[in-house]
Amino acid sequence: MNPETQLVELKTIINEYTDLVATLGLLHWDLETYMPPGGSQARGHQLATLTRIAHKKFTSDEVGQLLEDLTPYANELDRDSDDARLILVTKRLYNKRSLIPANLMAEIAKETAIAHGVWVRARETANFEGFSPSLEKIISLKRQYADHFRPFDHIYDPLLDDYEPGLKTADVQGIFSSLRPQQVELVQAIKAHPQVDDSFLHLHFDEQAQWDFGVEVITDYGYDWQRGRQDKAAHPFTQDVGAGDVRITTRVLEDYFPSAFFSTTHESGHGLYAQGVAPSLARTPLANGASLAIHESQSRMYENLIGRSKNFWSHYYPRLQDYFPAQLGEIALEDFYKAINKVEPSLIRVESDEATYNLHIMLRLELEIALIEGSLAVKDLPEAWNEGMQDFLGLTPPDDALGVLQDVHWSQGYFGYFSTYALGNLISAQLWECMLGDIPDIDSQIQRGEFGQLTGWMVDKVHRHGAKYEPQELVQRITGSKIDQGPYMRYLTGKYSEIYQL
Amino acid sequence: MNPETQLVELKTIINEYTDLVATLGLLHWDLETYMPPGGSQARGHQLATLTRIAHKKFTSDEVGQLLEDLTPYANELDRDSDDARLILVTKRLYNKRSLIPANLMAEIAKETAIAHGVWVRARETANFEGFSPSLEKIISLKRQYADHFRPFDHIYDPLLDDYEPGLKTADVQGIFSSLRPQQVELVQAIKAHPQVDDSFLHLHFDEQAQWDFGVEVITDYGYDWQRGRQDKAAHPFTQDVGAGDVRITTRVLEDYFPSAFFSTTHESGHGLYAQGVAPSLARTPLANGASLAIHESQSRMYENLIGRSKNFWSHYYPRLQDYFPAQLGEIALEDFYKAINKVEPSLIRVESDEATYNLHIMLRLELEIALIEGSLAVKDLPEAWNEGMQDFLGLTPPDDALGVLQDVHWSQGYFGYFSTYALGNLISAQLWECMLGDIPDIDSQIQRGEFGQLTGWMVDKVHRHGAKYEPQELVQRITGSKIDQGPYMRYLTGKYSEIYQL
Repeated sequence: MNPETQLVELKTIINEYTDLVATLGLLHWDLETYMPPGGSQARGHQLATLTRIAHKKFTSDEVGQLLEDLTPYANELDRDSDDARLILVTKRLYNKRSLIPANLMAEIAKETAIAHGVWVRARETANFEGFSPSLEKIISLKRQYADHFRPFDHIYDPLLDDYEPGLKTADVQGIFSSLRPQQVELVQAIKAHPQVDDSFLHLHFDEQAQWDFGVEVITDYGYDWQRGRQDKAAHPFTQDVGAGDVRITTRVLEDYFPSAFFSTTHESGHGLYAQGVAPSLARTPLANGASLAIHESQSRMYENLIGRSKNFWSHYYPRLQDYFPAQLGEIALEDFYKAINKVEPSLIRVESDEATYNLHIMLRLELEIALIEGSLAVKDLPEAWNEGMQDFLGLTPPDDALGVLQDVHWSQGYFGYFSTYALGNLISAQLWECMLGDIPDIDSQIQRGEFGQLTGWMVDKVHRHGAKYEPQELVQRITGSKIDQGPYMRYLTGKYSEIYQL
Repeated sequence: MNPETQLVELKTIINEYTDLVATLGLLHWDLETYMPPGGSQARGHQLATLTRIAHKKFTSDEVGQLLEDLTPYANELDRDSDDARLILVTKRLYNKRSLIPANLMAEIAKETAIAHGVWVRARETANFEGFSPSLEKIISLKRQYADHFRPFDHIYDPLLDDYEPGLKTADVQGIFSSLRPQQVELVQAIKAHPQVDDSFLHLHFDEQAQWDFGVEVITDYGYDWQRGRQDKAAHPFTQDVGAGDVRITTRVLEDYFPSAFFSTTHESGHGLYAQGVAPSLARTPLANGASLAIHESQSRMYENLIGRSKNFWSHYYPRLQDYFPAQLGEIALEDFYKAINKVEPSLIRVESDEATYNLHIMLRLELEIALIEGSLAVKDLPEAWNEGMQDFLGLTPPDDALGVLQDVHWSQGYFGYFSTYALGNLISAQLWECMLGDIPDIDSQIQRGEFGQLTGWMVDKVHRHGAKYEPQELVQRITGSKIDQGPYMRYLTGKYSEIYQL
């Protein structure tokens, strides 16, 4: 068979595999939005069956043989062509996934399905001991999982690589070790200055009005409603259900304005990314984000670098005041801007501000690595957590629900995931500095509520390439350097120096 | 291998197959409710891929061998046991489906997917010629499909059998030939009497109030919201997404009250049926209705025999007047009852009343049989339709949009489907007469808005058995006779004699 024919064969299988993955996406979306409670058991079966069929299809010997045969062909093609990247990225995924016995995958799926419920109950009762046997099992399974990838520099590498292809534990540790003292110093400096008032953000804000305002903003951002929709979910997320169907979710708190608005703008960043992937990559593993960190760079950019900027609110604040005259009519733009950027070390990651957020992540990374290495026992985890919180943020949780039990990730087996949040923050600022060179008048565009050129730049540089490039390669291609904390610290320092008069 | 082990193996495959079918259900439901327009192409791929995988799984040689090996075992079991019926029903489905080449299935799927859009455009422009090439192809494919089942009594038999297992063309023709003159006679008699006034049903009825009233009623019927939900759809339908997840849809017209209410109560009948299937049948082909006609017997019963009865409205009419005091406050119960039961021959099947509905179906059955036999050419179909309408209902459509192009079914390849609607009407009345023997005070229960005993009876006699029994067998088991037009004609005659003072 000639390589062209083999490539068609590979694509046929890969297309079907991607259809199954997109369908799994819909099953998940529905589970979190509209599924009646009675459907949960059947949904579990449906998810398990489709996952198994998709995994078998992707890791079949036929796919392995086609990829092996096609590798020389891919190396002859233009390395940046869709076909070359499709073969190479698929081969990388295949090599990884086919190393893992189906039984281990199934056991992880089963244990994490059980552990989720256990974690929910443990958090409700702030009882870490209720959760620790599950966590021990999951860590043991994730160690077994990682062991299949020997040799490696660090046992945490294969876990991180699942979310950030090509990135090593040492890379992240290197970035975080120079980032940490700068973030701590900034937070200390802010603490020494008078706090801003954000009490008016806690007034009553009508749900529908919040929803409408958010929709107005992300429509301006360029989110395409013909190829998307927004629904409510307890934990907001973005779901890609195949080309032309990228859905976002949000939640609305009527007694705290920032919750829905920044959730909507955050998810719209993920949504813009997924909507911007080139149609030529549809139905392949390239029709994804390059990594979770690159994805987070987009969501944090539209949420924070844009959505919490003074340029943005100089345009939108009068509009927001029209929506909420009683609550905000008498509040000056300057005071509103300061309020939504208030810095205050807090116990809960998802509620934390831009200056302290990454510190929450660094603590989690340290603990995860120690758990996976085996240098920290699960029974000692709550104490290590509390010591870390004191060390990083100067706070001690009153109980484990507000401490070590706050995040869902470990119960789901998502070891290696957390650092992508912080890396996304760093990349967002790197991209922003780079974009400023190409669009010098971006400030005045944002002041007019115009985002066409900005989003167009992101589509061109980031979105359309999908998963063709690994995250470090993509950042390097765009900015000329690897993932780096410099731009983000410059961004934070500049912003808070003005707000807190540092 | 012993039969017990083989049965476990069979169930494992069948369970996965059923998970795929349930997932296809969700893909369809979402397509009709919430999918953004941009998702349609990807959805087409997802539906095709899952259909192909499900078909392959079900018709594999492994399944064939297991079924063959298990048949003697099934014959030793209690014939009414779940296991015996699972083996026998699955074998019947397997024998049917494995006769059809995958290529033919794919071609039918492809042609009908194209034909749907062609039909939509043809209907919009009332241009039958635009649709006729597609219809010719589909009829040719359905003939090829039927040919694989030779020998048969009639080429239409295998098509009918897809919807009504075990029923023959001659059976339906026999029933319809004694039904037709009686229905025609009734309609003629009604025509000779003064018409009732239903003008007040065309006033403005607020959408949310209509929705709420419908929800109130079907909640009383016993529709379980923990295991279901209701959404809006252009063409109302019920979707089973696996055990514990049975969703209904409705549409609301603000200028015509009956549309949403009778659509909601109709779909709730389908929903109650699917929710009532025994949990022990979950994840198997037995977790379905026995046939479309049996399904329709439930939907038409909750819509008409209950929802258009005077007993029902003697309880609910004051409540409806509370919802719509301006529209109905001055309208007497008796006048409202007559209005929602107004008989008037009309061009459109889905808008027709109980007395004329079956006549629409009989016309379609005649034409379908002639088309499949080849005794009627597609080019002559519009003329045959118009002649039939004159013959059956005394009307001539002004154009093909209001005539031969009105129904979606043929464009979807659903030949054999229409008669199930009329059969469902007949069965609903047969079940009702039988139920009256067991619940003699059902009238007064309905007058109190109590449906527990009624729905419980349906669950016990019909719902819980799922697809264990073929439709004729099920009707025979419950009522002691096969499908029969007697009870339905008694029901219609009794009802309209009073309304129209015949």
